[in-house]
Amino acid sequence: MKEWITSRNAAYEILRAGSREVFRLEIAKGATVKGRLEEIIRLAEKRKVLPIQVERSRLDSLDENHQGMALEVSGFHYSDLPDIRNRAAEKQEPLFVLLLDLIQNPQNLGTLIRTAEAAGMHGIIIPPSRAAGVTPAVTVSSAGATEYIPIVQLNLSQAIRWLHEQGVWVIGLDGGAESDLADPQKLGGNLAIAVGSEGEGLRPLTRKQCDQLVRLPMKGRIESLNAASAGSIMIYLSYLIHRQ
Amino acid sequence: MKEWITSRNAAYEILRAGSREVFRLEIAKGATVKGRLEEIIRLAEKRKVLPIQVERSRLDSLDENHQGMALEVSGFHYSDLPDIRNRAAEKQEPLFVLLLDLIQNPQNLGTLIRTAEAAGMHGIIIPPSRAAGVTPAVTVSSAGATEYIPIVQLNLSQAIRWLHEQGVWVIGLDGGAESDLADPQKLGGNLAIAVGSEGEGLRPLTRKQCDQLVRLPMKGRIESLNAASAGSIMIYLSYLIHRQ
Repeated sequence: MKEWITSRNAAYEILRAGSREVFRLEIAKGATVKGRLEEIIRLAEKRKVLPIQVERSRLDSLDENHQGMALEVSGFHYSDLPDIRNRAAEKQEPLFVLLLDLIQNPQNLGTLIRTAEAAGMHGIIIPPSRAAGVTPAVTVSSAGATEYIPIVQLNLSQAIRWLHEQGVWVIGLDGGAESDLADPQKLGGNLAIAVGSEGEGLRPLTRKQCDQLVRLPMKGRIESLNAASAGSIMIYLSYLIHRQ
Repeated sequence: MKEWITSRNAAYEILRAGSREVFRLEIAKGATVKGRLEEIIRLAEKRKVLPIQVERSRLDSLDENHQGMALEVSGFHYSDLPDIRNRAAEKQEPLFVLLLDLIQNPQNLGTLIRTAEAAGMHGIIIPPSRAAGVTPAVTVSSAGATEYIPIVQLNLSQAIRWLHEQGVWVIGLDGGAESDLADPQKLGGNLAIAVGSEGEGLRPLTRKQCDQLVRLPMKGRIESLNAASAGSIMIYLSYLIHRQ
């Protein structure tokens, strides 16, 4: 399946990563070719794809928020569980994995992928249905991080069983949990962090399979953090304090 | 100025906080009155505002993503600098303030306000122009946190001068900074955290006025975190490690 990427940063990262087939590059007439756009054209040319000038209205028809260009590429390629294990093995690091339970909002999904990639996680597991998949909007809001970290679509129950077989400790972020923060010793080892959906948190079955449920302390009047913020904070706590 | 709030959580928080005048509550015909919606009706009735049944098409005309209701309220009320100082004084805590430099995306602004409120910050300062203000979309994406924390619109240069007069240490989050993390001793005292815009980071003048520039460590291929994630992580680092 082909798709159009209309953000310059995401198009640049896709070309830089070499993670997709590249079919076509359209540039708006009158666009100033410098900076990131110039780099996109140069990288596309290396892949034998020459830029084609089009009317702005043509790009508007693809995406009203386009940035004066559109890159046609093959659809996102999902990874498998061994890709995650291999990534950790290559780096000789304890496994560090993100599990996302029914995240619906593409901006939240993109943000979490971006934070996971930045913190050096080895992979992300998302459910195959009833959750946002890696669409162009997610690639864009991840700033292209989707191209650099293995993302696996798998039933979370199976995923957690596999993680347990690998000796991974699974922590669930849950607003209703009693434990304020995770056991610091666990945060530095083989670790998976499970983040629930925006409205409902983790599903009961996922919650049950976690080795530990933790909640971030809060001292305000609002009952919960944004799912992407809570996940990002938890990922970085583990990364900054236990993995540097 | 009046505005319409079409998210149930935000409408509930506005009513619970008592932070706005309430003019009108419209409910879609056929909406099931239970849970949050029932609480909204009860709280509005206490304010002498009775629910009015309307056609769904009427709500669609206000906001295509409405949740079966719309609450008409007075516009957001900005605070002044002394409100921030008083909030800290009442709680007998060292000042803990968020400065936002040209955040453009309402979802990012809402997310940062929500995290700041959750971490018990005493106030937020945003520029009066060229940045997102506290619109209904921001109140919604903050999950109503806008109603519980003082938000001041002020030129950031003046704001930083005022903070310095109060003995506040101003840390700027900057992707280009050399220092990996802030001096831990400073993180627990009078502290302001400045977060830059999505694309450009902090403006040069803001950067120059900061006492220290820090960047969050990153070990991936992507160059930066989402502005709301980076800000949320920094706020929580200070809160969790130095203010509990």
